[in-house]
Amino acid sequence: MPEFMDVHRGMVGITPEALHEAHNADLAIQEDEKVQFKKAWADPQSGVVFCLSEAPSADAVQRIHERTGHPADEIHPVPLAV
Amino acid sequence: MPEFMDVHRGMVGITPEALHEAHNADLAIQEDEKVQFKKAWADPQSGVVFCLSEAPSADAVQRIHERTGHPADEIHPVPLAV
Repeated sequence: MPEFMDVHRGMVGITPEALHEAHNADLAIQEDEKVQFKKAWADPQSGVVFCLSEAPSADAVQRIHERTGHPADEIHPVPLAV
Repeated sequence: MPEFMDVHRGMVGITPEALHEAHNADLAIQEDEKVQFKKAWADPQSGVVFCLSEAPSADAVQRIHERTGHPADEIHPVPLAV
C-alpha cells in the first residue's frame, strides 16, 4: 500500500492530549477507507503537524481527516524513502 | 535529543538514487553537529522531501544540509509525536 505524508497547518499550541485525541479519532474510522495511520509529529510553536499513513490514495486519507474535523493542507505520496 | 522534521521543496523528479546519495552525504558528516538523521521520504512528483532527525537544534540540522548542498525550506522541532 502506498505511503503518504500529510501536512496540517494552523495548529498553534496543540497539546499532547489534543494530538492524541485527533490521532485516535482518525484511527477509529480509518478502516472505512482502508487507511492505516502510522505516526504523527507536531510542532506546537508553528502549528504544523505531519502525519504518515499507508492508504489506497491521498483522497482516502483526506476523507478520514475531513470526517474527523482536521483536513490536511497538503497530502504527498512518498514512494521513495530511506 | 529533540526531534526535528524538515521540509525540502523543488526536488521534482528526484530519483531513489539521488535520495540515497543526498541522505548518505548528510550521514557522512552528521556527527560534526551531533545530528542523527533517522528517515527521509520523497514525493518526486511535487518535489517535496521530508527528513526526520534528532539534533541539538534546528540550526545544527540546517548546517549539515547546507554543507551537503540541499538546505531545508522549513525545519520544525516536533516535540510531540504519536
